[in-house]
Amino acid sequence: MGTKVSENPLYRLLCPKSIAFFGASNSIENVGTSQLLNIVKGGYQGKVYPVHPKEKYVLGLKAHPTVMELPEPPDVAIMVIPNHAVSESLEQCGRKGISRVIIITAGYGEMGPEGHQLEAQLMEIASKYGIRFLGPNCIGVINSEISLNTTWFAHLYKPGHVGIVSQSGSYVTQTLPYFANMGLGISKAISVGNQADIDMVECLEYLAADSQTKAIALYIEGLKRPRDFITTAKSITPYKPIIALYVGGTEAGRRAALSHTGTLSGPDEIYSGLFSQCGILRARGLTDLFDWALALAQQPLPRGNRMIVLSNSGGPAASMADECNRNNLEVPAFDRQTQEKIRAMMPHTASPKNPIDITMNYDLDLIFKKLPKATLELPQFDGMLFYGIFGPIHFEHKIKMANGIVEIPLDFLRSWMRQACEAFVKFPEEYGKPIVCSCFCGREDEAVAFIQDHGIPVYPTPGRAVRAMAALWKYQQIKRRANKK
Amino acid sequence: MGTKVSENPLYRLLCPKSIAFFGASNSIENVGTSQLLNIVKGGYQGKVYPVHPKEKYVLGLKAHPTVMELPEPPDVAIMVIPNHAVSESLEQCGRKGISRVIIITAGYGEMGPEGHQLEAQLMEIASKYGIRFLGPNCIGVINSEISLNTTWFAHLYKPGHVGIVSQSGSYVTQTLPYFANMGLGISKAISVGNQADIDMVECLEYLAADSQTKAIALYIEGLKRPRDFITTAKSITPYKPIIALYVGGTEAGRRAALSHTGTLSGPDEIYSGLFSQCGILRARGLTDLFDWALALAQQPLPRGNRMIVLSNSGGPAASMADECNRNNLEVPAFDRQTQEKIRAMMPHTASPKNPIDITMNYDLDLIFKKLPKATLELPQFDGMLFYGIFGPIHFEHKIKMANGIVEIPLDFLRSWMRQACEAFVKFPEEYGKPIVCSCFCGREDEAVAFIQDHGIPVYPTPGRAVRAMAALWKYQQIKRRANKK
Repeated sequence: MGTKVSENPLYRLLCPKSIAFFGASNSIENVGTSQLLNIVKGGYQGKVYPVHPKEKYVLGLKAHPTVMELPEPPDVAIMVIPNHAVSESLEQCGRKGISRVIIITAGYGEMGPEGHQLEAQLMEIASKYGIRFLGPNCIGVINSEISLNTTWFAHLYKPGHVGIVSQSGSYVTQTLPYFANMGLGISKAISVGNQADIDMVECLEYLAADSQTKAIALYIEGLKRPRDFITTAKSITPYKPIIALYVGGTEAGRRAALSHTGTLSGPDEIYSGLFSQCGILRARGLTDLFDWALALAQQPLPRGNRMIVLSNSGGPAASMADECNRNNLEVPAFDRQTQEKIRAMMPHTASPKNPIDITMNYDLDLIFKKLPKATLELPQFDGMLFYGIFGPIHFEHKIKMANGIVEIPLDFLRSWMRQACEAFVKFPEEYGKPIVCSCFCGREDEAVAFIQDHGIPVYPTPGRAVRAMAALWKYQQIKRRANKK
Repeated sequence: MGTKVSENPLYRLLCPKSIAFFGASNSIENVGTSQLLNIVKGGYQGKVYPVHPKEKYVLGLKAHPTVMELPEPPDVAIMVIPNHAVSESLEQCGRKGISRVIIITAGYGEMGPEGHQLEAQLMEIASKYGIRFLGPNCIGVINSEISLNTTWFAHLYKPGHVGIVSQSGSYVTQTLPYFANMGLGISKAISVGNQADIDMVECLEYLAADSQTKAIALYIEGLKRPRDFITTAKSITPYKPIIALYVGGTEAGRRAALSHTGTLSGPDEIYSGLFSQCGILRARGLTDLFDWALALAQQPLPRGNRMIVLSNSGGPAASMADECNRNNLEVPAFDRQTQEKIRAMMPHTASPKNPIDITMNYDLDLIFKKLPKATLELPQFDGMLFYGIFGPIHFEHKIKMANGIVEIPLDFLRSWMRQACEAFVKFPEEYGKPIVCSCFCGREDEAVAFIQDHGIPVYPTPGRAVRAMAALWKYQQIKRRANKK
């Protein structure tokens, strides 16, 4: 199961007791200021030492002109300074005894030969002092376990189980509101930038060993050490899922990758083969990458591919059923006995065959409790696709509209919905079977938020829910194959 | 260009001056009450006559025991009553001289042979009196032009240009919050249900003639009159785009469709061929269906497939470039002269080649004005994929965090952003070239909302933006081919 997490060079970098920060000031115009603000006000409990040539205080903290004056060598130094100043500061970090550095500063390998030379310089200094560094041209890290966020976007959502390694800083920064909107909690997120020193392989090893991380999402423009990547990924996927998005496989993607992170990409088919060989799920876009990671981090794997489709509406039921068949999932009709049992619970216009379509009605006990119980207990079914969340937001709109001319018992509905949801979210564990939902409302609806916050993914369309379930089944097969060897 | 809109049987149904409503009461437990509430309080200005056997007033309106007592024959009757009562009520409508009816009630063809017989009965009564009806087993219509919404979900968003015809009531009802979240405005939405009388073909004819509708989205479980559908669709797609989602082409989808709307579906390949023959864009899921419809309803078509990719971040730039190449769009590098011109405007770490990656900075004039102008004017480029919207919401989070320890000039940033966006949204018309954006923030960010509300789609991921642009290009080719004939 890999090495101990504390032996990985990223451990100190992600779990520092103290941080020196180069490049923040008291003006928000510096990106560094924004990043330091996130560290200082984002909940991180360690010590923080701003380093600034002139200011006595930065964001209310005592500042020092160089690291040499710090009362201790901090665990990590973070640099957001002009690139002509980076080498000198790195030297000082070395002399001070700082062994982990995050270099945010850009203008290196991605700029061509001259930039590569500057990167080589950094490597030279780093090896002289035994420094391991992340970057350059990255955005840093998030460790939600200790509320550390060195990026410049506020971390808006609670900790979770998705670990991310990305060659794009934006995909662990600007995506934070997107994650919050889908209820995706990060364990650790690492922006690797140009990977001059620490690279994706070491990040993979770290996340494999990290117990908070249940699924790993990778954004790849090109691999620097493909052989080591294969060996490492192969050793991880038998027990922890990896999903990867690769964008370097087209002419325009390759060109963009080169000028973004100085990465040399390879042909698409080679990466497809490589991922498949490693047991990595290949995502075709960001939507898949994060959708699948969320489900894999939170839901049990299905033992087979036979799905229950439960819905309070025929369109989503048909869409889910159709999409199942397009993604190697089956939706077998229930046997006659089960159909009779289900029919007896439902309105006469409802369909008990699978998909179950209860047709629009407000019997929350039926859809959230009775029907899931009656079907999840069937040994011949392996998981459930669910559509039917209508939380208080719908009634709130109605109440505004009604303006008193008809009574809508919101408190009653809200508490009924809450009880129904409380029972519902326990089923995956109770039956050892995955449930994945879709709903056209987002987290503005408290029922959606509640279900998401209790570990069941809720996606905005039926199709995305099904494809996430298909990823669970695909990973189950990968795992079985690997563990048979 | 089709017949006059007022000659279509749907005209009176969608634009009624008065409505009789069967099945609403003063209790919100009846779905009908919820639907009547939407009509009465949703902005519709016509006359509304509740029909109720006992109540004197329903939702504050004078009720009548039968339609016979109404002071006039209303343009439309809507029925949400038990199905044993439908035939009798339909008879009365006929006798009163009502010529358009929406039958929401379920329990017909979707229930098997017995239900089909009930449907035949409705047809018999209807033809006796010259009634044209929608349904049964549907959810009614939305006509945003006159704020008429007979569904039971509040219509949360302003009118727009996407016309929808759906065999699923949910896809014009429960999707309303989804549309609102993506800034999609409906022109007309029609839930056709079992299509016992009025069917999808007539709806297509109506939307083709409707000037408010710029793009047509179809949700299909199976076609009742495939030959007429082909003839009609073929006559529309040379001037108005149609996008279709078909779910009946798999075993599970077919079974679900049968029990949902009593529809007989056909093999997937046949529908693929049929759509392609008609010049219909086939969507593979709801995400595509509504994403593409939004772009097609609002943006000019690209004259060719050569795209500018403009971003303030390398990851989204690479993702968009890669996805372009996977969807028949090119991202050619700029010529040297243009690269020099662009390079001179940007930070030294930025990339001027195409994709243009200005790297993270707050120069809103650069990304929203100068660079679009410098590139959209190039005759050898046909459209722009854009990533780089960071509106006030980001700063609002920061301000909360900063809590006074650093000054963030929100008002200044907000007004700068507003000015930048105001210039930006004019470019598609100015240059006759489409712009499609992506942003990880949704409409909670006022910059995203502003850009969406001024006609430029903003999708949550780079990939979805590119696929929407690809749909524009695909439709351009369809149109050219059709108009050459």
